Amino acid sequence: MSDLAALVQGVRASDRRSVARAITLVESRRPEDEARAIELLRALSGEPRRGLRIGVSGPPGVGKSSLLEALGVFLVGQGLRPFVLLIDPSSRRAGGSILGDKTRMTELARSPRAFVRPSPSGDATGGVSRAAGDVLAIAEAAGFGPAFVETVGVGQAELAVLDVVDLLLLLLEPGAGDELQGIKRGLNEWADVVAVTKADAGRAELARQTSAEFEAAFHLLRGGDAPRVLSVSAHDGSGIAALWGALEERHRALAATGELERRRAEQRKGELHRRLSHALLRRFMQQPGRAAALERAEAQVASGSELAAEAVRQLLEGPP
Amino acid sequence: MSDLAALVQGVRASDRRSVARAITLVESRRPEDEARAIELLRALSGEPRRGLRIGVSGPPGVGKSSLLEALGVFLVGQGLRPFVLLIDPSSRRAGGSILGDKTRMTELARSPRAFVRPSPSGDATGGVSRAAGDVLAIAEAAGFGPAFVETVGVGQAELAVLDVVDLLLLLLEPGAGDELQGIKRGLNEWADVVAVTKADAGRAELARQTSAEFEAAFHLLRGGDAPRVLSVSAHDGSGIAALWGALEERHRALAATGELERRRAEQRKGELHRRLSHALLRRFMQQPGRAAALERAEAQVASGSELAAEAVRQLLEGPP
Repeated sequence: MSDLAALVQGVRASDRRSVARAITLVESRRPEDEARAIELLRALSGEPRRGLRIGVSGPPGVGKSSLLEALGVFLVGQGLRPFVLLIDPSSRRAGGSILGDKTRMTELARSPRAFVRPSPSGDATGGVSRAAGDVLAIAEAAGFGPAFVETVGVGQAELAVLDVVDLLLLLLEPGAGDELQGIKRGLNEWADVVAVTKADAGRAELARQTSAEFEAAFHLLRGGDAPRVLSVSAHDGSGIAALWGALEERHRALAATGELERRRAEQRKGELHRRLSHALLRRFMQQPGRAAALERAEAQVASGSELAAEAVRQLLEGPP
Repeated sequence: MSDLAALVQGVRASDRRSVARAITLVESRRPEDEARAIELLRALSGEPRRGLRIGVSGPPGVGKSSLLEALGVFLVGQGLRPFVLLIDPSSRRAGGSILGDKTRMTELARSPRAFVRPSPSGDATGGVSRAAGDVLAIAEAAGFGPAFVETVGVGQAELAVLDVVDLLLLLLEPGAGDELQGIKRGLNEWADVVAVTKADAGRAELARQTSAEFEAAFHLLRGGDAPRVLSVSAHDGSGIAALWGALEERHRALAATGELERRRAEQRKGELHRRLSHALLRRFMQQPGRAAALERAEAQVASGSELAAEAVRQLLEGPP
């Protein structure tokens, strides 16, 4: 059996080492791995279904990892097999504390029915990596689901998480307000479900009050499209089952109207265009001198000393 | 004097027919006009300054045209020379009622110190046309300013208005709520200033109350970055001067922190990348059979029957 056939078989059998190796392959940026990654994904895409994918975002410190640990353990208890993809540029900047995140999800990461995967290869901008969709496809082929993509909600390319998930769960803190200004603009409006975290013991009342305020604010700004707002505690588990219920309900509602399939088709088409543009640009930049010329053009155009249209005209002169 | 030199001179002298002709040239999609358009823009960009540019958005029926008429007439009274670019796909769909919009701005459109321009060539998606930035550059070279770009706030590409303006003014209705669900998601969060319209006579109290509610909602969701919220009436003119004051204040604050220049440099760099990608894609698609192949690939990828990565690999086979 070829190396690749063994890997396909291992992923389908949900062998953890095979899953990890397959993910590493699709995340690889080495050109020589690209063809094998495509071959692997094509072999696996014989699997028909795409599972439910949920983006989880919120300001730093809101408790994303704790909540995902609590929710993941709950889902394992329900007989499901949650997959968690962690994308956290601040951890990366701090030098490897992503593994710290994984370690914080002690119970979930240890469960044989769950899979927690830090993304080592996110975009330099801190956004969702180009490979995130492929990573989720592998997890789904291995029988994991639902899949969660945890992002920190502050990066330039943060909204890119919307390119790979079906739903967005936004986490906010009790008494939130000023600390939200750090979150990526636009993210609030894409939330499908909102959870106010840390609603335990002494803060339950504050959390309930905050939930009511957010509910009113979302209703005012989004009308009938406003997300449900719930209070949850990763500490004592309160609200976790209700949160899962709200996510499932939203999922069913989107599926019933055809919006879910529409979102997925848009995502796939968007990926085609992004990949094609990226490939054409990469091919163009392979000509000698082009990278330096583009860098010069960027500086001139950004400062306003050259028009973008003229810079592009000059860049395109010469061999294609 | 060459034709183009005469056009440049006419624009600089703020001759209305020259301005209109110059705008038509940069909006043209005919390939043979492209080089002349670049030449014109380069000749005009000797003019150093870029004026204040304000996007104006809000749900259909909120009164964008009436407000712009009232604000424009006020600015003419202040000795300024406002320019208004109208982009309204719903009007276009209704078959030419864009001119109806222009006609609704009767007083402003007649003023020799103002210029109202419907955009006949917006993107098919209803978004801000690729030429919008160039149109504004011509208006500014002709001495017009501030410039307003009115968009209807519902199109797919609606957020593209943020690529060409410095500030976003969002208009909402008294008692708003449910009707907001039609507005493009994400737009609320980019608002620099919010105005509740129709705050005249019988509705003044309702408008004040709505303003207070929106203020609280924006504060909760955006913290210290929340926009100012004002009530205005295009009918009796109340709040118009205060609205201009709020826009100027926001403009000054952005300029003082360097954020304004940062936004503009980002916009110019973004335009360079968009134009380069677009040009490379156009060049690629010129090969025979490519357009049909891309269409087939889109259908296959959207339905999930082919991987985006594999489709791109196949498209790229053959001559570059």
